[in-house]
Amino acid sequence: MRFFAKTAVVLGIAGLLFPAHSFSNDTLILKDIGEYMLTRGRAYENLRYLCKDIGPRLSGGAGAAKAVEATMRMLKEAGADTVYLQPCMVPSWERGPKEEAVVQYGNNRQRLRACLLGMSKGTPDQGITAPVVMVHDFDELRALGADKVKGKIVFINYAMRPELITNGYGDAVRFRSNGPAEAGKLGAVAVMIRSVTHALDTFPHTGSTRYDKDVAPIPAFACSTVDAEWLSALLKKTPDVQLFLKATPKQGPDVLSYNVIGEIKGSRYPDEIVTVGGHLDSWDLGEGAHDDGAGCVQSIDVIGSIKALGLKPQRTIRAVMFMNEENGLNGARAYADSAEARREKHVYAIESDLGAFSPVYITLGGTPTQNARVREWLPLLRQYWVLHMPDGGPGADIGPLRRLGPMVGNMIPYSQRYFDYHHAASDRFEAVHKRELEMGAAALTAMCWLASEWGVGE
Amino acid sequence: MRFFAKTAVVLGIAGLLFPAHSFSNDTLILKDIGEYMLTRGRAYENLRYLCKDIGPRLSGGAGAAKAVEATMRMLKEAGADTVYLQPCMVPSWERGPKEEAVVQYGNNRQRLRACLLGMSKGTPDQGITAPVVMVHDFDELRALGADKVKGKIVFINYAMRPELITNGYGDAVRFRSNGPAEAGKLGAVAVMIRSVTHALDTFPHTGSTRYDKDVAPIPAFACSTVDAEWLSALLKKTPDVQLFLKATPKQGPDVLSYNVIGEIKGSRYPDEIVTVGGHLDSWDLGEGAHDDGAGCVQSIDVIGSIKALGLKPQRTIRAVMFMNEENGLNGARAYADSAEARREKHVYAIESDLGAFSPVYITLGGTPTQNARVREWLPLLRQYWVLHMPDGGPGADIGPLRRLGPMVGNMIPYSQRYFDYHHAASDRFEAVHKRELEMGAAALTAMCWLASEWGVGE
Repeated sequence: MRFFAKTAVVLGIAGLLFPAHSFSNDTLILKDIGEYMLTRGRAYENLRYLCKDIGPRLSGGAGAAKAVEATMRMLKEAGADTVYLQPCMVPSWERGPKEEAVVQYGNNRQRLRACLLGMSKGTPDQGITAPVVMVHDFDELRALGADKVKGKIVFINYAMRPELITNGYGDAVRFRSNGPAEAGKLGAVAVMIRSVTHALDTFPHTGSTRYDKDVAPIPAFACSTVDAEWLSALLKKTPDVQLFLKATPKQGPDVLSYNVIGEIKGSRYPDEIVTVGGHLDSWDLGEGAHDDGAGCVQSIDVIGSIKALGLKPQRTIRAVMFMNEENGLNGARAYADSAEARREKHVYAIESDLGAFSPVYITLGGTPTQNARVREWLPLLRQYWVLHMPDGGPGADIGPLRRLGPMVGNMIPYSQRYFDYHHAASDRFEAVHKRELEMGAAALTAMCWLASEWGVGE
Repeated sequence: MRFFAKTAVVLGIAGLLFPAHSFSNDTLILKDIGEYMLTRGRAYENLRYLCKDIGPRLSGGAGAAKAVEATMRMLKEAGADTVYLQPCMVPSWERGPKEEAVVQYGNNRQRLRACLLGMSKGTPDQGITAPVVMVHDFDELRALGADKVKGKIVFINYAMRPELITNGYGDAVRFRSNGPAEAGKLGAVAVMIRSVTHALDTFPHTGSTRYDKDVAPIPAFACSTVDAEWLSALLKKTPDVQLFLKATPKQGPDVLSYNVIGEIKGSRYPDEIVTVGGHLDSWDLGEGAHDDGAGCVQSIDVIGSIKALGLKPQRTIRAVMFMNEENGLNGARAYADSAEARREKHVYAIESDLGAFSPVYITLGGTPTQNARVREWLPLLRQYWVLHMPDGGPGADIGPLRRLGPMVGNMIPYSQRYFDYHHAASDRFEAVHKRELEMGAAALTAMCWLASEWGVGE
């Protein structure tokens, strides 16, 4: 691609970026916000700190506690009028020593790159060894029946479907969530899933699993997709394959933790609240860069950019670092409970929890009137390449707040790469592109600014 | 991000992906096309071959010749009804031995990561040594005047502006294109620019430069942005800095090369042509993965997917691997000249030459009536996350065809990362994400299919 081609393209598009519109002052403010993020924003350096100086931030652990302190400081540095902690109880689950997963066949042994799923029960201290039976979905599992499953380790080798462009994760994660209960029901002694990712690589991807109260809980692992392919090939040609699994996680009583909140008081309607957030906790295998350090540092820069530009929002803008999204959602509940108890008036809430990739959609989760009203802002957002505002719900952390009636939204980035990193050791600071992170911060700020200036109607 | 959040989001959006529309059959066909690309597409493996088995493909060189053979084979394998070569003369410029750029100050020497710009003159065989004078733009250069520039090496340290979201390249590349003429006019003996990239890294980025016929040509280099920062700091504190530059490129007479063309004959209007293309040549420092192996293999899969799915387009669909986009555009001219000479009827033409990133825009470069008509297809394209169809021009290779009057378009991917790789050794196969490449192939195929089925009007 040569210079004049690019220039021609850009000029061609630029004509459409600033359509005739009644929001002429906002157009300029949004330009300033974008410029701030891309030249002076703090999101990238703040993310580096969360990832490199702190690292994994699983709820209840030392990393999460440090991240509470760090983001309080960042919010103060961003110039928030008020910074405070909001208590919530969170689970205390720890992976313990590195898990072991070793395939045994004939005289051979092969170690798998595998991890325990989050919140899973452990194995006995000495581990367990059992024959492996492979299935590709729950239909195959049920067809085997208890006769062929009892006493065995079920390997669910369901590959995330490549042809599903947006909902491959929702489709595949069923096996991570329900695998232990479905296999346990038939008498399996453990379950191992293929990691939920499009990537063919050597990272095991963790994530919460759950148990049915009527089924005895069994340990639940995930192996990397490369290992899943290898094991699948082995099982097809080798009749007698045993798997040794060992994991000794610790789960104690719930412990006290916090949401971290910083806000700019509204100049005209201080009691009307616009919330923007991400979640501060992360899984323990990676640095929680995309999931969801990004959403936190972007939300902090919503505050930082508005203060640095000397803007005075009419409504209160509140940045929330939610605790415990990954394995409990207790921070999100605490936030909604507190809002209800204090009879706060929440007008709009949006979150960023789908990775630090460039935003392209913002969902509109209000009344039809509100959605139509906010959709009028789309031409303003196009300068950041936010191109679509479909009706749609919020993310997990804003979910509980819905009962208080605010309009909600979710920032959806272009995320074909997201599941390469999701819940794995590959979710590191180096996987985040600075400009893409900053584009997201700009889009969130724009939405918060417009909601605080114009309200979202009824 | 947890499973139910993602699921909720996706379901929320999914409702909008397939709006009520009169193109119900096309909706299904486009779904098949997407599924083909993401499960059976050949684009990624073909790109691997172009990058890893062939490598750099500068016009007139051995790599380009191999790529002509390889893409002929790929088009045949894709099932094209006809595959043929279209001759064009191309420059023969070779970089020669690795360039040298060494800073000398006091008793110190520091080698810079630098390269000669494309089409630049060389230095004398023994190299040149001269004092360095740094400027940040042409105003500073002109303010210095001939007195302070004559006999020196001008270092133009213009950083690509981070706040420009879409046109930072067009803004910065002026210095690569016009730097030699502007500095030469004032008597400089050579020029070195800061590489045109947002990234702060150690790769020099090449690209074509040019000379004014009234100004004696001087050698033109680019250094990496990291080296530019270092040299800038040095020059601010050290009065006497000399730079040794050596490069001995070879330029011979133009040589014969080819565009590679494969087509599916239209079932109903075989004389009406829909063109899709990318360029086969690349700069010599990298593998030409994003620029523009991607556009070639995507275009080949336009043919491949339509044939594999048994679709019979009404109009002729032609995939063109243009030669010599980077340093001449002679392939593009040959294509337009041939079309004119044969009085071909070209109805629509689109190209992909902005990287293998996920497509989000498609520009519409037709009459107002045509643009309005094609914009009606946008809801169909949303399943691939193509979200916007602004008026806009084509890329460089389709440009010359415009005089024959077809509607033209350009596929614009989300490309904040593009200039990290552009014209540098970092533009390697490994920098391409398989699914993003495939999404682009699907979008191109969809546009070609719809144009061939429905036409684009007048």
